[in-house]
Amino acid sequence: MIPTLAWTPEGVRFIDQTKLPLEESFVLAATYEQVAEAIVAMVVRGAPAIGVSAAYGIALGALHTKAATPLEFAPEFDRICARLAATRPTAVNLFWAIDRIKRLFANLLASGATLVQIQQRILAEADAMYNEDIAACKTMGAFGAELLPQEGGVLTHCNAGALATCGYGTALGVIRSAVEQGKRIHVFADETRPFLQGARLTAWELMASNIPTTVICDNTAASLMRQGRIQAVVVGADRIAANGDTANKIGTYNVAILAKEHAIPFYVAAPWSTIDLATATGDSIPIEERSPLEVTHHGGKQLTPNGVGICNPAFDVTPAKYVTAIITERGVLRAPYAESLREMQLVG
Amino acid sequence: MIPTLAWTPEGVRFIDQTKLPLEESFVLAATYEQVAEAIVAMVVRGAPAIGVSAAYGIALGALHTKAATPLEFAPEFDRICARLAATRPTAVNLFWAIDRIKRLFANLLASGATLVQIQQRILAEADAMYNEDIAACKTMGAFGAELLPQEGGVLTHCNAGALATCGYGTALGVIRSAVEQGKRIHVFADETRPFLQGARLTAWELMASNIPTTVICDNTAASLMRQGRIQAVVVGADRIAANGDTANKIGTYNVAILAKEHAIPFYVAAPWSTIDLATATGDSIPIEERSPLEVTHHGGKQLTPNGVGICNPAFDVTPAKYVTAIITERGVLRAPYAESLREMQLVG
Repeated sequence: MIPTLAWTPEGVRFIDQTKLPLEESFVLAATYEQVAEAIVAMVVRGAPAIGVSAAYGIALGALHTKAATPLEFAPEFDRICARLAATRPTAVNLFWAIDRIKRLFANLLASGATLVQIQQRILAEADAMYNEDIAACKTMGAFGAELLPQEGGVLTHCNAGALATCGYGTALGVIRSAVEQGKRIHVFADETRPFLQGARLTAWELMASNIPTTVICDNTAASLMRQGRIQAVVVGADRIAANGDTANKIGTYNVAILAKEHAIPFYVAAPWSTIDLATATGDSIPIEERSPLEVTHHGGKQLTPNGVGICNPAFDVTPAKYVTAIITERGVLRAPYAESLREMQLVG
Repeated sequence: MIPTLAWTPEGVRFIDQTKLPLEESFVLAATYEQVAEAIVAMVVRGAPAIGVSAAYGIALGALHTKAATPLEFAPEFDRICARLAATRPTAVNLFWAIDRIKRLFANLLASGATLVQIQQRILAEADAMYNEDIAACKTMGAFGAELLPQEGGVLTHCNAGALATCGYGTALGVIRSAVEQGKRIHVFADETRPFLQGARLTAWELMASNIPTTVICDNTAASLMRQGRIQAVVVGADRIAANGDTANKIGTYNVAILAKEHAIPFYVAAPWSTIDLATATGDSIPIEERSPLEVTHHGGKQLTPNGVGICNPAFDVTPAKYVTAIITERGVLRAPYAESLREMQLVG
């Protein structure tokens, strides 16, 4: 089990994803502010993982309050939630998790719970989200594994694995489940510039699980597809709009186009908490622009000439028409997604 | 004028492209073996530049021979040519340049030239190729500039600039010429993993020429295209087959597919020496696989976990159907390329 994040009596313990794969070190976030900083610095990243991290962050904030009563704590609770919500804009799981704790808090306030009860219930809710996340990954893994070939190459982009969740992974969960079923899958991992989640994180966790993995530069996928070495693409998601448009790590849209051109199925695997029916289309999804330093420097070394322009969006949007299927813990959805997502929401 | 390579009394002086952009240092190749090593190590790279470098390498070998007569030199000449031909397999300009010097040598042998005359004539031929290369770049630049929009974003991949040629550049020559005509071009330069020719070399030479440039990760092009920020793509080539299939830096094929999907013209700019009518299609072009270390390490720092598989082809092949036009110093060619290339060869 890869220890992406874990609740401890001292706070939230994260494996430091900025240091992997060469260094397996841990960061203890003892306050909600430190959880927020870990999310911003991408010590922890991946839409499901940052959602649960934020929930634990609120729990830490609640446990450390100096307030004497729930009503005295309420404005502090709002500040804690606002701080955690301000860490990263694209992955909706973050806002989903914060909203879930907010609803719980409102109910507890209304029901006259004590501050200690509120503290316990928030932590219990974060724990529940942690466990639900792992269960969701395993269920979507089982659904998605059916879609992968008995044998062949599967391309993935970024890291939608155990390290992006509380364990098992979304896209990599689908691959794990297929491998557990005996399918002979060779994973091609896009290195995923600039943060190299594929080269560093996906490669690390798949090697730890003995799943054959080849790292490629992001610009190499089309050649491999043309050579018949890739039978399917499976990626995660940071936010799926009501029409199926999918925000995910920058470069996902590139891969989706390449897959279409080579008639290779392109699957998105994500828990239901990634689906944002309140956002009509991908055009409304906010895309985080990150520091130019991620592109201009590596390991402290400057790569580019001084002063050159840099464009460094952290995500892109893949229009729904490129998505062969969306794999969730509620089942596999097909186009038209506006309908299938709405129906699944009602039955879910 | 960017001093990509220059003949000096001591040998061939290269700007060290492995050190750019932060360090402008020079390497003197005083022997043909050192020229070969500079090509292998990518101190000098770019199809036209390595062709002319090989010609100068043969000149160095001829000047340094201990042979007393042309006939005594002949087997040494063959070894020199074989060494230079073995440096890199994909760019046909290398073989074109060596073959041109071989034909000259055979003629000189047949005509009873002295060894000193042979030495002088080989050096003069290399000088001619150097000057022809710059002239070809300027002519194709003028032809290609007509194809670029009056104003807009132009994406390029790798470095097909002054640094890939004896000066001015092929794809970047087209852009330079358009800018000289007063067109307002903003260049988006793919960083071009793993060697970062775009981030390091294209950015450096365009900034030196005051052409507005933004570096992007290779996986970011599709987003920019979708946002309407790219009006044309122009790239160089390492070998163009008789049917128009084009080998160029890994990732070019990705870009070509993305351009097609967004209805953006995709231009290839290359001197006639890059066209290989003896190679029927792109399937017959040998693709160099380079060291995994280019992907696994950067600046001495390891990026990937120990032992992970790496696939690092240096080039890919873009099928002719994705190429809107091929820009050469003989004119602009359009599909069907099997016909237009053959016709241009006859009139050329």
